[in-house]
Amino acid sequence: MAPTLALVGATGAVGTVMIDILNGRSTWPWGEVRLVASPRSAGKKITVRGQELTVQALAPEVFDGVDVAMFDVPDAVSAEWAPIAAARGAVAVDNSGAFRMDDDVPLVVPEVNRDKIAVRPRGIIANPNCTTLSMMAALGALHHEYGLRELVVASYQAASGAGQDGIDRLYAEAAAVAGKQVGERAGDVREALAAAGLSGDSPFPAPLAFNVVPWAGSLKEDGWASEELKVRNESRKILGIPDLKVSATCVRVPVVTTHSLAVHATFERPVTVAEAHKLFEAEPSVVLVDDPAAGRFPTPADVVGGDPTYVGRVRQALDFPNTLDFFVCGDNLRKGAALNTYEIAEALVS
Amino acid sequence: MAPTLALVGATGAVGTVMIDILNGRSTWPWGEVRLVASPRSAGKKITVRGQELTVQALAPEVFDGVDVAMFDVPDAVSAEWAPIAAARGAVAVDNSGAFRMDDDVPLVVPEVNRDKIAVRPRGIIANPNCTTLSMMAALGALHHEYGLRELVVASYQAASGAGQDGIDRLYAEAAAVAGKQVGERAGDVREALAAAGLSGDSPFPAPLAFNVVPWAGSLKEDGWASEELKVRNESRKILGIPDLKVSATCVRVPVVTTHSLAVHATFERPVTVAEAHKLFEAEPSVVLVDDPAAGRFPTPADVVGGDPTYVGRVRQALDFPNTLDFFVCGDNLRKGAALNTYEIAEALVS
Repeated sequence: MAPTLALVGATGAVGTVMIDILNGRSTWPWGEVRLVASPRSAGKKITVRGQELTVQALAPEVFDGVDVAMFDVPDAVSAEWAPIAAARGAVAVDNSGAFRMDDDVPLVVPEVNRDKIAVRPRGIIANPNCTTLSMMAALGALHHEYGLRELVVASYQAASGAGQDGIDRLYAEAAAVAGKQVGERAGDVREALAAAGLSGDSPFPAPLAFNVVPWAGSLKEDGWASEELKVRNESRKILGIPDLKVSATCVRVPVVTTHSLAVHATFERPVTVAEAHKLFEAEPSVVLVDDPAAGRFPTPADVVGGDPTYVGRVRQALDFPNTLDFFVCGDNLRKGAALNTYEIAEALVS
Repeated sequence: MAPTLALVGATGAVGTVMIDILNGRSTWPWGEVRLVASPRSAGKKITVRGQELTVQALAPEVFDGVDVAMFDVPDAVSAEWAPIAAARGAVAVDNSGAFRMDDDVPLVVPEVNRDKIAVRPRGIIANPNCTTLSMMAALGALHHEYGLRELVVASYQAASGAGQDGIDRLYAEAAAVAGKQVGERAGDVREALAAAGLSGDSPFPAPLAFNVVPWAGSLKEDGWASEELKVRNESRKILGIPDLKVSATCVRVPVVTTHSLAVHATFERPVTVAEAHKLFEAEPSVVLVDDPAAGRFPTPADVVGGDPTYVGRVRQALDFPNTLDFFVCGDNLRKGAALNTYEIAEALVS
């Protein structure tokens, strides 16, 4: 019998993208699909591959008979419910941060470490943070050939990394500020937001429209943001390099969806731009767009909505041996969240 | 007799900011001020410190009797006219890229290398590129104490770095796109721009509203953008470190004015966050805003329109010895252009 798939968090920002992915796949190993959400969303009808499904309220019984349960919910909900799903016999594939760094939970990017899905003592597999994920396919391809040693990363993270609230906030701010001259005096943007009744209650700690905000996540030791430590710790775990040197600075930018990263990566062996291009071209989940003479490089506006990671601006560092600088863009709701989760789910039953 | 100051390019984007700076200074060593521009702008009236001045057309005679001539004009205009001003006895302080890397032209940031203004064999002093300038005061303070060795930089550059055309373009794009759902499918932003008649003729090589564009300047060898090489070469010259290791990735963001940079800086000696804070606090042209627990870090919206460089997010790198990661914001039209040019001019007559 074809396996049963459950999607927990079917009505959230990532869940909505997951429905698109389910509808759009050319492969389909599943029999039944169950959509699950909070009691507030239960009863809602959503069409998946031509079938109208009714969203069920989260409860232990919904996992009975489920083979793979994908979780696109906040950390606390995953922490409570993924073990319940596993106890009922499902493999839980979790997109939250609840289990990522647990030693007995594999953290998987199928292109990079697909073999890790086989050993899952708790019945849980974790999906990486969206910022880390946006560069993993590209870095994994390079690491496999050249041995990654060091990583200095600066991010350009989209509003939707903060969920639907983040998207709504950026649109509201942009509408309040557009048409105003907001680039001349400190406080112009804040004034325009205040005039539109938008001075408080944002998922971001500063205005995002016509601004950039060097903060993502919560405060950890010594001034680091949780998102920056995730990039470090998750990259080490996924790539299997426990002593990988990493410095990340995470910055939110006024883009709705698609995270970008400026990557400075140092390897054990010399690597040329031509060799890197060849590896990127050979990796099906990476699209190489690197022809600045023709004005071609990846930008979020051209990447959003698709599955692949786009890579460009590949340069050999002039002063650092064995080092490449490049720029990468990935849809943070797709490969950065829903798509990678689904790819793990599909790998489990393939 | 009090010295005479000329401003060439008085009606451009940087020239307009320069007028604000002239009007706002608490010190004033000058007697006569002459405003100069292209013949097209000649005759225009501009008030400087209460006096209505008439803009004169650029011609050799306008430099007669001038002590310091500040140039805020394109490279080609500076290349032709700064030597003419120098030949007529003025010191030319040039904000273009025409002379910056010439061995017989000092490249000056007064906080860092003020002593270099004394030796100017051609009568020309160059003002650095705005991206480099945005981090120089902060880096200079650290370098003086700890010896800078390596620099990995990612920029978040404002539209006004491309002049008034860049500002106008970002406002036009934002107005065309605001209110539309542009973050779901690749091409949404381009479609919205096309619908508003904005599909071509931009100073940027891709849409900038709701997007980031990993390109600034022109294409140089091996895929590097001219702006990225300027950051490398100008940092080396200003700081007096000919073998400084530098990798920069320059990215345009939808901010009107104020460049930001994520800086990863490695020194000869260990430096703590507390020591760096102390140096930043002691540097009058730097404002330290570094209290993430209270949601305080520099953002362009809070920095634009002012003179100082703002620094925050100072962290000791976890895996790289003697290395700090930090975030810096500077108004690219003020300290990044007009203000630094004016500070050089004032230093020449002080």
